[in-house]
Amino acid sequence: MAYSITSLNELTAQFEKLPGIGKKTAQRLAFYVITAPEEYAERFSRALIDARSKIRLCSCCQALSDGELCPVCGDPLRDKSIICVVSDPRDILAFERTREFKGVYHVLHGVISPLDGIGPEKLKVRELLARLSDGSVKEVIMATDPTVEGEATASYISRFIKPMGIKITRLAYGVPVGGNLEYADEVTLQRALDGRNEI
Amino acid sequence: MAYSITSLNELTAQFEKLPGIGKKTAQRLAFYVITAPEEYAERFSRALIDARSKIRLCSCCQALSDGELCPVCGDPLRDKSIICVVSDPRDILAFERTREFKGVYHVLHGVISPLDGIGPEKLKVRELLARLSDGSVKEVIMATDPTVEGEATASYISRFIKPMGIKITRLAYGVPVGGNLEYADEVTLQRALDGRNEI
Repeated sequence: MAYSITSLNELTAQFEKLPGIGKKTAQRLAFYVITAPEEYAERFSRALIDARSKIRLCSCCQALSDGELCPVCGDPLRDKSIICVVSDPRDILAFERTREFKGVYHVLHGVISPLDGIGPEKLKVRELLARLSDGSVKEVIMATDPTVEGEATASYISRFIKPMGIKITRLAYGVPVGGNLEYADEVTLQRALDGRNEI
Repeated sequence: MAYSITSLNELTAQFEKLPGIGKKTAQRLAFYVITAPEEYAERFSRALIDARSKIRLCSCCQALSDGELCPVCGDPLRDKSIICVVSDPRDILAFERTREFKGVYHVLHGVISPLDGIGPEKLKVRELLARLSDGSVKEVIMATDPTVEGEATASYISRFIKPMGIKITRLAYGVPVGGNLEYADEVTLQRALDGRNEI
């Protein structure tokens, strides 16, 4: 195309690398940055470098953290004897929003997926087992996604934990609160029936 | 929320300021940057500063440019006697994609919109009239959007150009190529009928 401005193209290309951002959106975002006040680009630019350089993995639970320990592991009020195992750091935010869970987390950073070449050695499984070795943990909640890979990962890891005599639980299946039964798929509905409680 | 990492929150906040990016998406993008290779954040950060500091308005057509003149105005092969007036710099990209238009552009940077407090003095109208004053321009194509504001802006500006004896044209209205007549609105269809051509 005749109309080509190098620095604008470069910015568009960087936006386009983000997940879920296509060419058109990238262009729109790049134009926005250029027409927004100069402070915005400067602050955005600093935030990128800052976040990328400061954030590392919590040495205990492998969640994202800007210190040696993440805010949860560093909190003396959290119950270190219950570990909720999740596959993605963002899952922690979802649990924290419930304001109910008082235990700690462990992030696997993925699920076992042979098709994508992700075996258990690529996940933070060794780190989890190391945390369980001192006998202080009473329960491990397997909170991987309710997908085929998530289930397989949970059951794979459970096999190592079982012999340690630690209680292993899985999140309850059922119909989502506020959902519409008409749209519930049959597997979910079957699981909701299986897990029915007396009222 | 207990789980709060300052530098991550700051990056999420910057993403959230972009148009069309909500809280959830901003979070997803920030997480992506943190887990992507470090070079990405660095390059993205540089691209932001670079684009914002280098890009300015073309001194002739007011389009975005990284030099005194934009690539179109600086091209000796473009026909300077035909000016296509658009409201947004991105509209130029759309025209350039057709590879048909050989004239030059003028960017108004908005449309007249009294409700939003945008009067003609906030647009690059004065700059357009200055370009027309030396008599070298033969035709002005009013290519503002086919909306109420776009039409009003085109007819407002036309009133100043008419007395100069310059030909003023407007983009043809009609059904979009590849479109489905069933879904065409009645105003567009009426205009398509009005502008029908012999085959």
